[in-house]
Amino acid sequence: MASSLSLSPSFSSLRHHTSSPLIQRTPQPLYLRTHSRKSISIRALSAPVLTQDDLKKLAADKAVEYVKPGMVLGLGTGSTAAFVVAKLGHLLQTGQLSNIVGIPTSKRTEEQARQLGIPLSVLDDHPRLDLAIDGADEVDPDLNLVKGRGGALLREKMVEAASEKFVVVADDTKLVKGLGGSGLAMPVEVVQFCWKYNLIRLQELFKEEGVEAKLRLGENEKPYVTDNSNYIVDLYFKTPIKDALAAGKEISAFEGVVEHGLFLNMATAVIIAGKNGVEVTTK
Amino acid sequence: MASSLSLSPSFSSLRHHTSSPLIQRTPQPLYLRTHSRKSISIRALSAPVLTQDDLKKLAADKAVEYVKPGMVLGLGTGSTAAFVVAKLGHLLQTGQLSNIVGIPTSKRTEEQARQLGIPLSVLDDHPRLDLAIDGADEVDPDLNLVKGRGGALLREKMVEAASEKFVVVADDTKLVKGLGGSGLAMPVEVVQFCWKYNLIRLQELFKEEGVEAKLRLGENEKPYVTDNSNYIVDLYFKTPIKDALAAGKEISAFEGVVEHGLFLNMATAVIIAGKNGVEVTTK
Repeated sequence: MASSLSLSPSFSSLRHHTSSPLIQRTPQPLYLRTHSRKSISIRALSAPVLTQDDLKKLAADKAVEYVKPGMVLGLGTGSTAAFVVAKLGHLLQTGQLSNIVGIPTSKRTEEQARQLGIPLSVLDDHPRLDLAIDGADEVDPDLNLVKGRGGALLREKMVEAASEKFVVVADDTKLVKGLGGSGLAMPVEVVQFCWKYNLIRLQELFKEEGVEAKLRLGENEKPYVTDNSNYIVDLYFKTPIKDALAAGKEISAFEGVVEHGLFLNMATAVIIAGKNGVEVTTK
Repeated sequence: MASSLSLSPSFSSLRHHTSSPLIQRTPQPLYLRTHSRKSISIRALSAPVLTQDDLKKLAADKAVEYVKPGMVLGLGTGSTAAFVVAKLGHLLQTGQLSNIVGIPTSKRTEEQARQLGIPLSVLDDHPRLDLAIDGADEVDPDLNLVKGRGGALLREKMVEAASEKFVVVADDTKLVKGLGGSGLAMPVEVVQFCWKYNLIRLQELFKEEGVEAKLRLGENEKPYVTDNSNYIVDLYFKTPIKDALAAGKEISAFEGVVEHGLFLNMATAVIIAGKNGVEVTTK
């Protein structure tokens, strides 16, 4: 389990939240911040009616509190990360934040950030990042993650591994007891050459977990191609992965595997938004 | 050091050699086969006048003796491997060999083999190979290799790792005391995204060895692009790599590194042709 950390978050993000045009679709509850040894919770006093998107926005707003002027910032990919980028754009446009440089983890995020006027750079020019914020597909009790269902796992891992701090934002549907436990895809990026060979090897590697390995398809039922011209093999586990660290090493050792969606010992904080509020857990 | 193995090679390859139109440019010496605990040597009785290409052909012919009918065979890439493919084509065409399936390690080799009428397949359909034969850029006393100067390192490694036996053919200029010791390139295949970032990380990883890391350029001084749409960073070492096994693991752990040219604990036999004849060392 992750250890606790005393945080003193302001409520600025929640204030922005209630005034943001993006998130006024549902009535807003009152919040009460409570401390525990392991985490900080902000609980709703009244029963809220929050959509999953509302929860994602709540978590995103909370994460943006970590952003300070002068930072080199990793910008994640996916629906929750898009709320982070939108919020950063808003803060820059309204003068509440300045002097940041964003390193996008995908072409999609790059486009969104550029449209919002966020100054951008690349790892080549900024090899050390202060902070990366990104979503996750699964979060386990040790803050290990499955990521990359959006297809950007390699760039995400490169950028987030280069960051001093890596804050994960998610709604509480992403919590799992063990990685692979959601039954949804754990992606592995493979070179196009002999992808079937690697698919079969992956299937054999996770026999015990009862895995089903499938080539990801895109438009017109053609193989989905990543930003790096590779394919993705999605692994669907019947039971959680027994030893994620060992599994990660074994997958990486396959020739032709470019990257996998297990993000282990990388997250420094996880911000989870649920029906009862926002919870921050740090490592 | 590699251990010895008693082999009983016939001299058929040498006989073919002297009758092959490819290799009649220089006078051929007489050969004497000698055994040692570690290896089998075939020594020249008279001072030969052999070009480097002659030596490559000698080694290639020797390697082809390992090929038996019914085998699934990995076909390497590069100038020495091209002699192997040529020889196989000759043996098939003359009815001295039949019923083999070749798995090429590059588009170039695929083209050469197809022109020679060698039946071809892919790892996807033949995931287990009986034998792979390929050249090497460096061979150390433990039969560890540097490969991939030809740019096909990933496919070579995939095919050769899937082979029960892996026979390396080279002329004696490829022998080194320690990998990296030739001062020539040790290639690392990286995704195009932020290649400069990985180049700098590689440079830092081998500070002790005094490495110079360079992006490989192709035609028109543009970056060389591999069969898998990646770039190659070439590492030039001032002194040999201190711990190649550790180095291989560290390079592989870099996000965005697809494969590297250290082929460790893979070769089961090495056939070296020198001015004094052909030497076979097995593991």
